[in-house]
Amino acid sequence: MKTVLLTGFEPFNKATINPAWEAVRALEGWCGDGFRVEVRQLPCVFGEAIVAITQAVDALQPDIVIAVGQAGGRPDISVERVAINIDDASILDNAGLQPVDAAIVADGPAAYFSTLPIKAIVRACREQGLVAGVSQTAGTFVCNHVFYGLMHHVAERGIKAGFIHVPFLPEQAAARPDNPPSMDLDDIVAGIRTAVEVTLATDTDLAEAGGATH
Amino acid sequence: MKTVLLTGFEPFNKATINPAWEAVRALEGWCGDGFRVEVRQLPCVFGEAIVAITQAVDALQPDIVIAVGQAGGRPDISVERVAINIDDASILDNAGLQPVDAAIVADGPAAYFSTLPIKAIVRACREQGLVAGVSQTAGTFVCNHVFYGLMHHVAERGIKAGFIHVPFLPEQAAARPDNPPSMDLDDIVAGIRTAVEVTLATDTDLAEAGGATH
Amino acid sequence: MKTVLLTGFEPFNKATINPAWEAVRALEGWCGDGFRVEVRQLPCVFGEAIVAITQAVDALQPDIVIAVGQAGGRPDISVERVAINIDDASILDNAGLQPVDAAIVADGPAAYFSTLPIKAIVRACREQGLVAGVSQTAGTFVCNHVFYGLMHHVAERGIKAGFIHVPFLPEQAAARPDNPPSMDLDDIVAGIRTAVEVTLATDTDLAEAGGATH
Amino acid sequence: MKTVLLTGFEPFNKATINPAWEAVRALEGWCGDGFRVEVRQLPCVFGEAIVAITQAVDALQPDIVIAVGQAGGRPDISVERVAINIDDASILDNAGLQPVDAAIVADGPAAYFSTLPIKAIVRACREQGLVAGVSQTAGTFVCNHVFYGLMHHVAERGIKAGFIHVPFLPEQAAARPDNPPSMDLDDIVAGIRTAVEVTLATDTDLAEAGGATH
Repeated sequence: MKTVLLTGFEPFNKATINPAWEAVRALEGWCGDGFRVEVRQLPCVFGEAIVAITQAVDALQPDIVIAVGQAGGRPDISVERVAINIDDASILDNAGLQPVDAAIVADGPAAYFSTLPIKAIVRACREQGLVAGVSQTAGTFVCNHVFYGLMHHVAERGIKAGFIHVPFLPEQAAARPDNPPSMDLDDIVAGIRTAVEVTLATDTDLAEAGGATH
Repeated sequence: MKTVLLTGFEPFNKATINPAWEAVRALEGWCGDGFRVEVRQLPCVFGEAIVAITQAVDALQPDIVIAVGQAGGRPDISVERVAINIDDASILDNAGLQPVDAAIVADGPAAYFSTLPIKAIVRACREQGLVAGVSQTAGTFVCNHVFYGLMHHVAERGIKAGFIHVPFLPEQAAARPDNPPSMDLDDIVAGIRTAVEVTLATDTDLAEAGGATH
Repeated sequence: MKTVLLTGFEPFNKATINPAWEAVRALEGWCGDGFRVEVRQLPCVFGEAIVAITQAVDALQPDIVIAVGQAGGRPDISVERVAINIDDASILDNAGLQPVDAAIVADGPAAYFSTLPIKAIVRACREQGLVAGVSQTAGTFVCNHVFYGLMHHVAERGIKAGFIHVPFLPEQAAARPDNPPSMDLDDIVAGIRTAVEVTLATDTDLAEAGGATH
Repeated sequence: MKTVLLTGFEPFNKATINPAWEAVRALEGWCGDGFRVEVRQLPCVFGEAIVAITQAVDALQPDIVIAVGQAGGRPDISVERVAINIDDASILDNAGLQPVDAAIVADGPAAYFSTLPIKAIVRACREQGLVAGVSQTAGTFVCNHVFYGLMHHVAERGIKAGFIHVPFLPEQAAARPDNPPSMDLDDIVAGIRTAVEVTLATDTDLAEAGGATH
């Protein structure tokens, strides 16, 4: 029996809902052929968020960890490629912190690559009609922070891990004057579900172009 | 008993599906308290499209007409404000026509404003969590062409009429490398349904800002 | 000797500079073979702006009038196609006014098309390496207001008239956190200069596609 | 006397000009108080580009190296923060190569951070009215490839090094139907010049927010 840990953040930046957590908690208790899913909510706070995810990893000893966060304004399920060792916050976190150009792990490596099959996840989503893509940056806020902290913690343990960014929900976009792109919760859930299934089933990622010229 | 005519276009520009028609045909046969809905598919062809919609108006004698078209790349249900008397096609229509700077109706007025309650429709959509907005241009392709032809035909008849643009479906966006915004069919249908209900219920549109600085 | 009237707005929305006025005043006193240019600054105030431009037209009896305004966020010299008979302000003008869905001219036509050779202007700009395009909407703020008021005033007089939107200057874009597109003042001036020269030299506009699908 | 090496790429992807090289070569022979600038053109070819830049570094023994590349579609002088150890080409390079998910340096670190004072460069540009920003990703094409190869080569040598992406020139944007953002060559040159001056003058970078939430 394999264990899959999914995490989603609490709402942040004055929002009252976070599509990442809504999608993750919709998968609580999901069991399949040879696996079960555990979910955890993370605080949107530098430092505390890494403590929370690493404690969950230690307690659950999962085989796969996918952390999920909101990327308001992106139109797609963004499968992140790389986490970088820097905090540089353009807004306050939920504890009022705003670190600028601070290393996440002093003397840690500059970056970690996702160990999820990112290309296979994107292809499987698209084949189902879900809008998805590889992203070359997870930003420098709490999402990248958790992604880096997670990868650093599991680096030597053979756990497949990574991060996925998801769009605003329609109800969030509808409340904003600039009408950003959005995605239905069912589609976000289907994307995360696909990411779990593909990761369970994939040993070697697809070799398909998914990069950016800049 | 009031009659509401909804139209949607056939697929165009090499597509195999048109979200406008998918949404409209989902409402075929919809009846409510004092109204019934008729739907028609329009060819995506200059000239023929106006013939089709005006023949349907003459045959059905509707009280309300809402024409619906695809605006690939827009993230919202776009309630159009104005139709202009010009065809200027940047791509071919389904008959291979590409008029440039031709009047739709020789000696016709330069434009017609929608007579739908556009602000009330946008507000009602947003209150339901649907992403919607007023649009100041319906372009210069077959959508604007039909919008103008419709308004010209009903101008003296007391029929409320207008045009709504809708986003790509997720399955369309997923098949494109640039990951444009999209909207679930259920949400598009809900938006069109809301437009019908609000138009039936509204005598005077809301006076809420919905313009653009440029 | 032909007279060309160029107008540009004063700064608005708390800005201290308006690229439209900076470009127009750089052409003050410009004379060429058979023409001279007059420039006027317009207040960014509903009503007053139309009074100012129509008084200037009556005083100068120009052969050509090109009104110029800022379209912050657009990357190109946008040659406007059509002015619509509606004010719908999403921000306050410089007198604190914010009309919503008010006709500019009661019983006026719904719209006026530019009588400038808009396609020829765009092509001439591009051939010089200036980024330019036709725009299908001038918005619903003071720019569209002046454009409509101008066209209404000159409608029966055989004066060629129209409106051009221009981007932020680099110094404006550099002061904003979102790094919008911008254009050097020299390039904006070159674009307006080109518009004047092309309008003087063109009897019949080019028939080149310049429209939008939506 | 300090030596500053600037590199720019040859045109790629069927273009006939590259703004990066145009800007860099405009600074050939520039000497100031205690420094002189050397410039080199790089082939836009995986592998060869790194060979060219590392040979130039070995030959010139520079104190500072700034590699410059084109980021068509970006509106600003983009000072890159981080280079990642991956090639993932969505288009062909100038030799027809298209590596997918290949490490640039086998067993190399996942990433290197720029050692330029990226925040100070951005601030100095903005104070001069130049549109600039920090970028969290240099993509996965030849630009990132050279950036990574450069940082790997100079990692232990105390050379300050990094990468700057620049927009299309107006003449490039004018030739494209989608009217992307652009920047005058003079402004691009001024931005690169500023980067050199700031790097020469700065020991410790500014601690100003310059990150992204995602």
